[in-house]
Amino acid sequence: MKMIKHITALQIFICVLLLSFSGRSQEHPSLILTKEGVQKIRAELGNVPIFDATLEKVKAEVDAEIALGIETPIPKDYSGGYTHSRHKLNFLILQKAGVLYQILDDEKYAIYIKDMLFQYEAMYKDLPVHPQTRSYARGKLFWQCLNDSNWLVYVSQAYDCVYDYLSKKERKQLEKNLFRPFADFISIENPQFYNRVHNHSTWGNAAVGMIGLVMDDDELIQRALYGIEDDGLPIGAKDNDGGFIKIEGQEVGFLANVDEPFSPDGYYTEGPYYQRYAMYPFLIFAEALHNVKPEQKIFEHKDSVLLKSVDVLINLSDADGEFFPLNDAQKGMSYKSREVVTALDIAYHYGGHNPQLLSIAEEQGQVLLDDSGLAVAIGIRDGKAEKFQKKSINLTDGANGEQGGVGILRYGNEDMTLVFKYAAQGLSHGHYDKLSFSLYEKGTEILQDYGLARFVNIEQKGGGNYLKENKTWAKQTIAHNALVQNETSHFGGKYEVGSKHHSDLYFFDTSNPEVQVVSAKEKNAYPGTEMQRTMALIKADGFEKPFLLDILKVVSTTENQYDLPFYFKGQVMKTNFDFINPKSLETLGSDHGYQHLWLEGKGQPKENNAKLSWLENGHFYTLTTVSDKGDELNFVRIGANDPEFNLRRDAGLIIRRKNTQNTTFVSVVESHGQYSPVSEFSVNANSAISKIELMVETKEYTAVVIETKSNGNQLMLVLANEDKQPNKEHILKIKNKEYRWTGPYQFINVNKK
Amino acid sequence: MKMIKHITALQIFICVLLLSFSGRSQEHPSLILTKEGVQKIRAELGNVPIFDATLEKVKAEVDAEIALGIETPIPKDYSGGYTHSRHKLNFLILQKAGVLYQILDDEKYAIYIKDMLFQYEAMYKDLPVHPQTRSYARGKLFWQCLNDSNWLVYVSQAYDCVYDYLSKKERKQLEKNLFRPFADFISIENPQFYNRVHNHSTWGNAAVGMIGLVMDDDELIQRALYGIEDDGLPIGAKDNDGGFIKIEGQEVGFLANVDEPFSPDGYYTEGPYYQRYAMYPFLIFAEALHNVKPEQKIFEHKDSVLLKSVDVLINLSDADGEFFPLNDAQKGMSYKSREVVTALDIAYHYGGHNPQLLSIAEEQGQVLLDDSGLAVAIGIRDGKAEKFQKKSINLTDGANGEQGGVGILRYGNEDMTLVFKYAAQGLSHGHYDKLSFSLYEKGTEILQDYGLARFVNIEQKGGGNYLKENKTWAKQTIAHNALVQNETSHFGGKYEVGSKHHSDLYFFDTSNPEVQVVSAKEKNAYPGTEMQRTMALIKADGFEKPFLLDILKVVSTTENQYDLPFYFKGQVMKTNFDFINPKSLETLGSDHGYQHLWLEGKGQPKENNAKLSWLENGHFYTLTTVSDKGDELNFVRIGANDPEFNLRRDAGLIIRRKNTQNTTFVSVVESHGQYSPVSEFSVNANSAISKIELMVETKEYTAVVIETKSNGNQLMLVLANEDKQPNKEHILKIKNKEYRWTGPYQFINVNKK
Repeated sequence: MKMIKHITALQIFICVLLLSFSGRSQEHPSLILTKEGVQKIRAELGNVPIFDATLEKVKAEVDAEIALGIETPIPKDYSGGYTHSRHKLNFLILQKAGVLYQILDDEKYAIYIKDMLFQYEAMYKDLPVHPQTRSYARGKLFWQCLNDSNWLVYVSQAYDCVYDYLSKKERKQLEKNLFRPFADFISIENPQFYNRVHNHSTWGNAAVGMIGLVMDDDELIQRALYGIEDDGLPIGAKDNDGGFIKIEGQEVGFLANVDEPFSPDGYYTEGPYYQRYAMYPFLIFAEALHNVKPEQKIFEHKDSVLLKSVDVLINLSDADGEFFPLNDAQKGMSYKSREVVTALDIAYHYGGHNPQLLSIAEEQGQVLLDDSGLAVAIGIRDGKAEKFQKKSINLTDGANGEQGGVGILRYGNEDMTLVFKYAAQGLSHGHYDKLSFSLYEKGTEILQDYGLARFVNIEQKGGGNYLKENKTWAKQTIAHNALVQNETSHFGGKYEVGSKHHSDLYFFDTSNPEVQVVSAKEKNAYPGTEMQRTMALIKADGFEKPFLLDILKVVSTTENQYDLPFYFKGQVMKTNFDFINPKSLETLGSDHGYQHLWLEGKGQPKENNAKLSWLENGHFYTLTTVSDKGDELNFVRIGANDPEFNLRRDAGLIIRRKNTQNTTFVSVVESHGQYSPVSEFSVNANSAISKIELMVETKEYTAVVIETKSNGNQLMLVLANEDKQPNKEHILKIKNKEYRWTGPYQFINVNKK
Repeated sequence: MKMIKHITALQIFICVLLLSFSGRSQEHPSLILTKEGVQKIRAELGNVPIFDATLEKVKAEVDAEIALGIETPIPKDYSGGYTHSRHKLNFLILQKAGVLYQILDDEKYAIYIKDMLFQYEAMYKDLPVHPQTRSYARGKLFWQCLNDSNWLVYVSQAYDCVYDYLSKKERKQLEKNLFRPFADFISIENPQFYNRVHNHSTWGNAAVGMIGLVMDDDELIQRALYGIEDDGLPIGAKDNDGGFIKIEGQEVGFLANVDEPFSPDGYYTEGPYYQRYAMYPFLIFAEALHNVKPEQKIFEHKDSVLLKSVDVLINLSDADGEFFPLNDAQKGMSYKSREVVTALDIAYHYGGHNPQLLSIAEEQGQVLLDDSGLAVAIGIRDGKAEKFQKKSINLTDGANGEQGGVGILRYGNEDMTLVFKYAAQGLSHGHYDKLSFSLYEKGTEILQDYGLARFVNIEQKGGGNYLKENKTWAKQTIAHNALVQNETSHFGGKYEVGSKHHSDLYFFDTSNPEVQVVSAKEKNAYPGTEMQRTMALIKADGFEKPFLLDILKVVSTTENQYDLPFYFKGQVMKTNFDFINPKSLETLGSDHGYQHLWLEGKGQPKENNAKLSWLENGHFYTLTTVSDKGDELNFVRIGANDPEFNLRRDAGLIIRRKNTQNTTFVSVVESHGQYSPVSEFSVNANSAISKIELMVETKEYTAVVIETKSNGNQLMLVLANEDKQPNKEHILKIKNKEYRWTGPYQFINVNKK
């Protein structure tokens, strides 16, 4: 600790020297707002509806806070508690007040900022680390450095806005007692927080960089971009989420945090929920860098991945704009969040004015009060907005795009959307759910991914932090629509192991919108067992809507028990199999998440197909699955061993196949019909499928036939399991008929009339 | 049976005679549309937006059906099945086609009606009763006479519209082979269905009356209005819902069905869900009667109760327009249903053009295509609509308003709404839930009434009919927020006993919008035990929103176990008491609904107050209840012994007080704060109450104090339990301080600063 302090003092000295000899005189504001931009904004005021409306709202909010007076309480609480919420509100309001000062040129905002900054300055000098001890990197204002970094990212902007308003002496006092020690605390004094590839560090890097840009402190800017050179951290240490702190040979700093977690496609390895969270520091610091250090060409970095990632983020949402809850993710978070408002406006302004982004901005209903927000507001005003076209899209994972990915298949106007995950671990927020999926109809979950077990910022629920059920339930394989072998999670639920592996794409083809297919393989989740899952979104005659075909092929060197869950949302309508309801409820197992499942019903298939229908949000759904005689069909309910009611009581059906070496699960999920409790009309309440059959299952080939009730049509999907070359010709004899095709799959309407 | 047939033939003969000598020549259409009305409609077309839009929608719908061709399948299915749905759609389309023929004067609609009617005529002659046997009164086209009656109510209107289009011979053939036998079948041949006071009979009466009006058949009209004189039914017989068919001395027929189930206030004893269902035949037949037999003065009958009841029905809905699920009621049914469109338009037109009804019509987004719908459309077009002001309202139950009732307390713009039930049994659709309540914030249920156990018209779920869990769960007392003694439902769950009794209002006072109080007593649910429940909706300093105070006083001649459930909706946030979660789940009991409850958590109070907070739809809620040391606090989950997943897995907290003779349960339910998963801000997540105390509990007086956290204010409600005279002066000494007031209650801010 002493050594670190020593380095800090030395660095400050060097920095002061550098500043003294710097000939350049920097304008203010220069980060997010610019002198020129402010002039332009003032000129347009009253003439850009969405900008004007945002300004009015922000002004009302800030004026109300100014009227209430300034409060900077002694830090005490976890997330959601009073002191936490107050300091959080303070930094949000400071940033807004800075913007208002610049745009409206009303001194009261500058006074408010100045007064609050000096209150912080007076407090910070002697402030000890935060009294709450749960974090691996405790902050001072907040319980973790992460939130202190949030504070500095926002407050740097406020400082930039009043920089010229303050006297040189005032600035010196603030920088010496508040900003510089603040930046040092979250970086040099907490390298375990600062010097990582992690969304936490992104915030830390951006915070140090933002204040460095305002102070024109090149040492801080370099530290932001490239991290701390000698952090003295041991290799392999972990944080309190179980994530690695230091990995041998890994680059750190802001640029590394762009390079590493983003794939070349712009997919962020932690998933969209955390991408959304990280987007703010990524984009806001990028914008500031662009304005102050254009020579850095940050928006062009890694083939413009930051701009690309905004497009990806929007594509990772359902029809209501809510993000798919891949890995740790709180449901309900959407592209309407303030972080995405920021990211989107910046991406629009610096990314070539894509008119489709404007329709999302319209949904957001607000813009940034800066140059980029103005550009968006003008674009909308001038009628340039176009509907954002969400696509079927395959997103690679990994810094080089070589660590699996996520495949999204969409039909029509998000009428049905498949989210198929064959990605890498996703750092410490990753779940053990190789080849898992979720399915949506518009914004309604048909088959859900549970998401995280946490109530973010709700103090009553474990201080608003991760609950222990996140680890014991939400991360486990059985919590997902993914295959579980022998009641054990993928990689044994071991982060160290999971982090070494990823699934591999076999193929992804959406060239035919009526038959879109993605297929991937996983060979490491269970040593000795290989899984291949192929999912197809198909719209065919005899079906009212598209359906999902799910073919999961398992090949193992040993006999195992396989569990394949389907977490359907809604009310059970009908099954074609019998089941018994236990007189008392027991858990399905004792570990790896099974301890959280009550066994609500135990059934066996009566026929070669098992069927379950349910009703959700006015639509009927049916799962039809090819069943073996020995299969168990278990109805489960989440919520066992949940002493604080942290989990939702959602349902699932788990297909259990015991004492089996190689097997293939074949299932179809249909959406059909509708029901309204107002008209009380029930329409098309039954499945359109009379039969599904696995016709061929060899090492080389898989063939599945779906027969429709209405016209007896047979729809067949044939897969070449080992050769995916697009030009490879395949010949396969099925029931004395020869089928020929090229490429990894073929969809055939056998009895097409 | 033979005798009945004989009577029918004789009646037909008399009828024909009457017709032959009738000098009056009736115009057509004359029931819902009138010749004059049609002229007026044609003149306004293109100039009344909501009417034009409805017309366009109806035309598109009917044209599509005409294009598909006519189908009248041989009856086979229960509700929701194909033949049921087809015949149901047929009568709805026929009625619409009739209207289109009149308004658009396009012969294709008349041809369609004529063709379909003759197809029915050909089929009906030899049609046996419906093959499904579940009903106490099987229909011919449908499994129950009820649906056959629906058919005739609608088809009569179609016939009226094409009456003049058809030749005399054609009319004769239809009347002889279809309409008259149809009317006789649902009346004379099914007196157990027709000759009752019940929503079924209302449909039957209206059906017979409607066709009687078209045919100008006075014998049918009289039968509709006054029933069958000698039905030969035994006293005390029951239908398959368990309802009485014949009660000694009871009047029958349409007028009796207006007189009996409606209270003078316009409350329908079965509850709003069934009132909505019955509204169509009530109002449509009333309109027809008014048009054809104005001398009947039907709209003035019983102090204009039919018109009044429309207003009541709207008042029995939440902020989304969904009806409170009193007694058997499917949730989600709302005043947007087609039946209420009909009722509302007619009530507007014949009830003095109340401009508040127009705003509801705007929400409905459609109008009737007749004189009354035109009046509504013109009213809306001319900007006359005013917001419907839902009120705090006390509605008496019983034909004379002397059988208890329902009290609704509303604060603000439906910010909080209490529904308090102290009514009569509610005929065969009644639940055993004396002094039960439910609580709403806008359209969100805070504490729910379960509703019914049925999926209306969804064939997969028990043919769309009542499920056995409706009786074993939904009707039982423990399924409600109502007191259960010794794990036995009110009246032992016996319909014969429950039907003899009702609760009694003690007082209802909403003169002060900040302190609204209703109090009622129940002396018969458990012989030897008297309950008095007082519920107050209070808005006071120190509270962000209004809160509900619930005082339930129980006095008994014996020691009992009392269970008081609170069916909270949402995710548990926090309790101030410890509880254990069982390792395996057992049911809470074995009968009276208890067999459907899993015991999920078992706790005891740690303090004098037990607290439970939960989160629902972005709002926090807290229940605070005065607790005894020996109380059990049981978390329950609905869904045990539910072999077909017919029940929702909703939660409840049951306060259990054992071995107790007299006791008073005192609880407060607060709504506070908010949470957004997009901003992730959690605001005001904690209860504002530091303590609730029962200060006085004597035979004569009850006094409760609520202490607020923010300012330590003490809010006291004192009740005079035995003398409710408004002018009676009371003096009560509490903690050496003397309080004086007049009337049954007083609300006192003790430490008001």
